[in-house]
Amino acid sequence: MQYGIFSYQNETPRVGIRHGNRVVDLSVLAELGVFDFDSSVFYELFLNEFIALGKEVHQRARTQVQTWLTNNEIHPEAYLSVDEVTMHLPVRIGDYTDFYSSIEHATNVGKMFRDPENALLPNWKHLPVGYHGRASSIVVSGTDIRRPSGQVKTNAMDTPEFRPSERLDFELEMAFIVGKDSTFGEPVNIADAEDYIFGIALFNDWSARDIQKWEYVPLGPFLGKSFASSLSPWITELADLEPFRTAGPVQDPAPLPYLASGVSAPNFDIELEVTLTPKDGTPTVISRSNTKYLYWSMAQQLTHHTSNGCNVRVGDLMASGTISGKDASSYGSLLEISEGGRKPFPLEDGSQRAFLADGDTITLRAHAERDGTRLELGEVTGRII
Amino acid sequence: MQYGIFSYQNETPRVGIRHGNRVVDLSVLAELGVFDFDSSVFYELFLNEFIALGKEVHQRARTQVQTWLTNNEIHPEAYLSVDEVTMHLPVRIGDYTDFYSSIEHATNVGKMFRDPENALLPNWKHLPVGYHGRASSIVVSGTDIRRPSGQVKTNAMDTPEFRPSERLDFELEMAFIVGKDSTFGEPVNIADAEDYIFGIALFNDWSARDIQKWEYVPLGPFLGKSFASSLSPWITELADLEPFRTAGPVQDPAPLPYLASGVSAPNFDIELEVTLTPKDGTPTVISRSNTKYLYWSMAQQLTHHTSNGCNVRVGDLMASGTISGKDASSYGSLLEISEGGRKPFPLEDGSQRAFLADGDTITLRAHAERDGTRLELGEVTGRII
Repeated sequence: MQYGIFSYQNETPRVGIRHGNRVVDLSVLAELGVFDFDSSVFYELFLNEFIALGKEVHQRARTQVQTWLTNNEIHPEAYLSVDEVTMHLPVRIGDYTDFYSSIEHATNVGKMFRDPENALLPNWKHLPVGYHGRASSIVVSGTDIRRPSGQVKTNAMDTPEFRPSERLDFELEMAFIVGKDSTFGEPVNIADAEDYIFGIALFNDWSARDIQKWEYVPLGPFLGKSFASSLSPWITELADLEPFRTAGPVQDPAPLPYLASGVSAPNFDIELEVTLTPKDGTPTVISRSNTKYLYWSMAQQLTHHTSNGCNVRVGDLMASGTISGKDASSYGSLLEISEGGRKPFPLEDGSQRAFLADGDTITLRAHAERDGTRLELGEVTGRII
Repeated sequence: MQYGIFSYQNETPRVGIRHGNRVVDLSVLAELGVFDFDSSVFYELFLNEFIALGKEVHQRARTQVQTWLTNNEIHPEAYLSVDEVTMHLPVRIGDYTDFYSSIEHATNVGKMFRDPENALLPNWKHLPVGYHGRASSIVVSGTDIRRPSGQVKTNAMDTPEFRPSERLDFELEMAFIVGKDSTFGEPVNIADAEDYIFGIALFNDWSARDIQKWEYVPLGPFLGKSFASSLSPWITELADLEPFRTAGPVQDPAPLPYLASGVSAPNFDIELEVTLTPKDGTPTVISRSNTKYLYWSMAQQLTHHTSNGCNVRVGDLMASGTISGKDASSYGSLLEISEGGRKPFPLEDGSQRAFLADGDTITLRAHAERDGTRLELGEVTGRII
């Protein structure tokens, strides 16, 4: 199921699930006695307490909700239109980690910033490269994003200036939410890694390329990213994705044993789409990509993350990194689409973009489809102000 | 005052202050009616709720506790010996940021890993370089630290191996705890930055240099650091440090206006000491340093961090980075003391170290002293297992 935190008018936020164009209020179902577990979790302001109950309870919740939905007429108190509710950040996020798991993205960026002949660094195919991100500035889809200022120094400048970013970008990512605490000092085995994943959600890791370029050596991205990231209000349970499992890219060289899952289909076939809509303008689809392109699987990311004994906690968020496909129609950032800003691309309304203009809205969408079953994973939007 | 979370026997942890070799139980003082504000915060498991009350309340707490201590005999229920209590992690840490603010440390590391002639990267003197760290694995002083395993690839190896770290190190740091939420999208002015700092605490950012070396390009330190960091159980209020203010190093070039505080004494003169004690062995003091060496002040760190609109929250932790002085007797890491492991140094018991051995305990201590006033800032210990 897809879980979120919603509010109706001025009422306190609570837990709901998405059911087509409706939100089912699980606190109402709790009052109706639908659940056989402690359903006070559905009155919380975040999903963490529900998530912490564990997969066995999540499975019971699924069965009990579905049975109720099947056996009951639409119950007006429990059903709300998605248009009449306000969605909130679904999870109290502990730590946020951003990986760099798309080989196409890493290659594109490596060609631009480092060496076109050796775009991938030597470690890239041996481990899922990642870094710690900023959790405080993760906001729910729909939140306006203020253009950040920061220190910038281009090659033409002798000294840096503090000014608004001129190279504001999005990053098309898929995140997962940790569903179970691990123990400090104890790695999570690759075979158990998916037990620690509650679900997934679309994620836009906004990036200011000019700020990033000047600050990022030697300790990695910092203020070029930390001004904001946008998260889907809906978390899709991992169980919902089973029909869409698929093989990932062949991993050559073979991963070290601690990262070798032996699973033939660790990836998911989820179609992604990015739309750019100028202020008062027409939307233009600027990219179509797919999570199946990711070189490193979520299980490998989580196991690698804990391989040194680092503990994960319910509500931690781990994002994939930008998901790019093989050509420009499937790149997951403007940096790649506009080739570092050198090749602006046209929009439907006749204007051009290399990076984001004030008033632009970026919308990420995701769905999976197989054998007639279609799963909408919702959208993430944000407008630059 | 110095605040911490303690427990006595099997009782629930609560808030105390350090008073010499005693802990004053603020929940007992609350019951005695000492405070004129909502003192339920002293029954919390972390200091966050107290901190969030703001500096005006902290000042009242200070006056009310000191008045009570002056006017009352030792009240056995409220006073416990530090030896008979268990200390806990004092703060529910939101985001953890680690800076790199010691010019001596950055220079030493730059010489070793990059170019001896251009040890500092071009951005270093223009902004406080920092990165996001891992909050989940910050543990209270006294917690044993398990030697991490990870991918290692030395120059002599063709492919990486997964193995226990052979270059395990400490980092001598001072951290501060954010005392006030800032607003998403709005920078904190340098003149207001200290209003957002509740207090400071010693911090050991354990590091596995071999894991770090292989993984850290291009996105910065990750598993080489995230296995554990150790925090002092006592947070010293910023107000306690006023007598120990001092000028920092001259900043040349002058910082950009958003980082220019105009304050003549933004640093603090706090003496630091590092002791290494082998299993069943004699302690050896291996470094003496001072927080006054830090090139970038805490106010500059916080203002820079929010300059892109990134919000900070009560309980966020920002650490200084390794604090090294001018010569080997004041270096804040074994990497520097042993010159990258090439020059092992002798211990009092006749053994040698380049990096940490199993059973070694590292103890950081801090105190400030001026005009006959001495302030103990406590200690941070951790033993390698």
